[in-house]
Amino acid sequence: TRAVLTTRDGRCSGYGTGPAGNPTSAGPDAAMAAMSTAAGAAARQAEVSLDGVEAVMVAMAGVRTLLDPADLARTLGFTGPLGQLRTTGDVAATYFSGTVEPAGCVVVAGTGSCAGQVRGGVVVRSVGGSGWLLGDGGSGFAVGHAVVRAVVAQLEGTGPATALTALLLDDLGIAHDGALTADGRPTALGALVPTLYRGRPVALARYAPLAFAALGDPVADGIVAGAQDALAALITAVRADAWVGPLVMGGGTVSGGLLAPGVARTLALRLALEGADVRLVRDGAVGAAALALTAETSRLDDAGLDRLRAGVEALRTA
Amino acid sequence: TRAVLTTRDGRCSGYGTGPAGNPTSAGPDAAMAAMSTAAGAAARQAEVSLDGVEAVMVAMAGVRTLLDPADLARTLGFTGPLGQLRTTGDVAATYFSGTVEPAGCVVVAGTGSCAGQVRGGVVVRSVGGSGWLLGDGGSGFAVGHAVVRAVVAQLEGTGPATALTALLLDDLGIAHDGALTADGRPTALGALVPTLYRGRPVALARYAPLAFAALGDPVADGIVAGAQDALAALITAVRADAWVGPLVMGGGTVSGGLLAPGVARTLALRLALEGADVRLVRDGAVGAAALALTAETSRLDDAGLDRLRAGVEALRTA
Repeated sequence: TRAVLTTRDGRCSGYGTGPAGNPTSAGPDAAMAAMSTAAGAAARQAEVSLDGVEAVMVAMAGVRTLLDPADLARTLGFTGPLGQLRTTGDVAATYFSGTVEPAGCVVVAGTGSCAGQVRGGVVVRSVGGSGWLLGDGGSGFAVGHAVVRAVVAQLEGTGPATALTALLLDDLGIAHDGALTADGRPTALGALVPTLYRGRPVALARYAPLAFAALGDPVADGIVAGAQDALAALITAVRADAWVGPLVMGGGTVSGGLLAPGVARTLALRLALEGADVRLVRDGAVGAAALALTAETSRLDDAGLDRLRAGVEALRTA
Repeated sequence: TRAVLTTRDGRCSGYGTGPAGNPTSAGPDAAMAAMSTAAGAAARQAEVSLDGVEAVMVAMAGVRTLLDPADLARTLGFTGPLGQLRTTGDVAATYFSGTVEPAGCVVVAGTGSCAGQVRGGVVVRSVGGSGWLLGDGGSGFAVGHAVVRAVVAQLEGTGPATALTALLLDDLGIAHDGALTADGRPTALGALVPTLYRGRPVALARYAPLAFAALGDPVADGIVAGAQDALAALITAVRADAWVGPLVMGGGTVSGGLLAPGVARTLALRLALEGADVRLVRDGAVGAAALALTAETSRLDDAGLDRLRAGVEALRTA
């Protein structure tokens, strides 16, 4: 959870973070607490009080259906008119992190994945976002899940040997010395399986970086290629027949792996990206700030968005 | 959960069923209650009292680590010496449902999947059984999960049209009239996704039969072919270099779909089965009874196993 505090003229004066707080998966209370932490940190950095804030934009998946505006205002210490506390989805915020154009497309692949088509400044078509069990192709969960399944398959003997096995077992501190139990199972498998069931399934996203670390290994290459194909399917499903406006792409799985420099792209992904004006963004933090500004003042221009982005990046890395 | 009551000379005198009761997924109490129900029903059919039973074999995944023998005896009303209440895994029971040979292989694909190599009457090598999240290739969960993901992909626009969509939506009573929400999603998708998240993930196994019902549809054919390949991987992993003894195959997903008459077999599955002496069985009920008998008396011969199987089948269908 990230909070950006700006002046009326679009200069970033504070940036803060809180824990993960998706209201759908973590619950409304955790989401509120995470926002409060992030907003408080941003205000402290800007050396202002939150009750002096004029307008707020909360960008989060599920924010409109799961969180109450009055509760949000109380949580954030926002004392202005409730009409100036606005909400939007994470897809729109990611899009406006990358462009000021009112029409274009956006694809987000972080822990989950989804895509949107924007027309007239609003998302008019959504694809994906069906969650780890039913969809989320190309997501960090999909990649991390494929990593752990590939390791289990090697240890069971149903899948090929892969460099991912040593990486995962080392990561978890599980010995892989080839020892077997009485019924012929590797003892490493007996330690690994209960460890992986212990957390929430979606937490398997944390193993996605192992696939990118093991590139060159055929199994890891196959996992990354499958995720790129799924990303291509999202892009193809959400674009119109011809590209209109930019394609904003964000989320840790996009920038940290699927489109990372030097990573080979599948044919499907190359075809899906053909002719696209791609803008990579980290997340929706800049876009949420941009939406807060444009709701209160006039439309932001390219220079204004660049200034805002540079300001946020400067405080992020400070 | 199934219970078989036999006489000392191997004639089946009672058969009863209870609800599903895997101690790992449903908990020890539910497993105990399910066994009590099944055993009680078998005793009523045989018109005997359970306290006259001389020996018990409890065959169940996880029975040795999760259930206490004294608790089991109390639950089943077994008043004989505790040494005559024995336990074994579901894999061994399935194997001995199909053969009296002390050496061979067994593959089970029901809701989950696993395989075992038997030598000297005991399972010396186990493969699979890592559960729905990490393994279970070729299982009812794997097939049912693939079915619902294919339907979600079609409705999202990331996957091809498939006959599975109408089958699943009709099954769930969800209208599929092509209506869209404001952000361009099919309303059917909005109804489907929360419905599928509501249950436990493993419950998606209940949609596996839709894949077999839709054979001829390319998406359904692909799902079944993928499950057959996974079954082939299990078989290849568990057999020795050459076949020794029979290959017993059991579980609803094997007999109800992957090896059903008229279902085309993938190259991998044909190669895996080459030279195998395949015996299809329904489950481990006959094998548990056979193990109870052989622990108390001498080894069962083929004729004895056939008589036991015929007796169980007669009472099952009565």
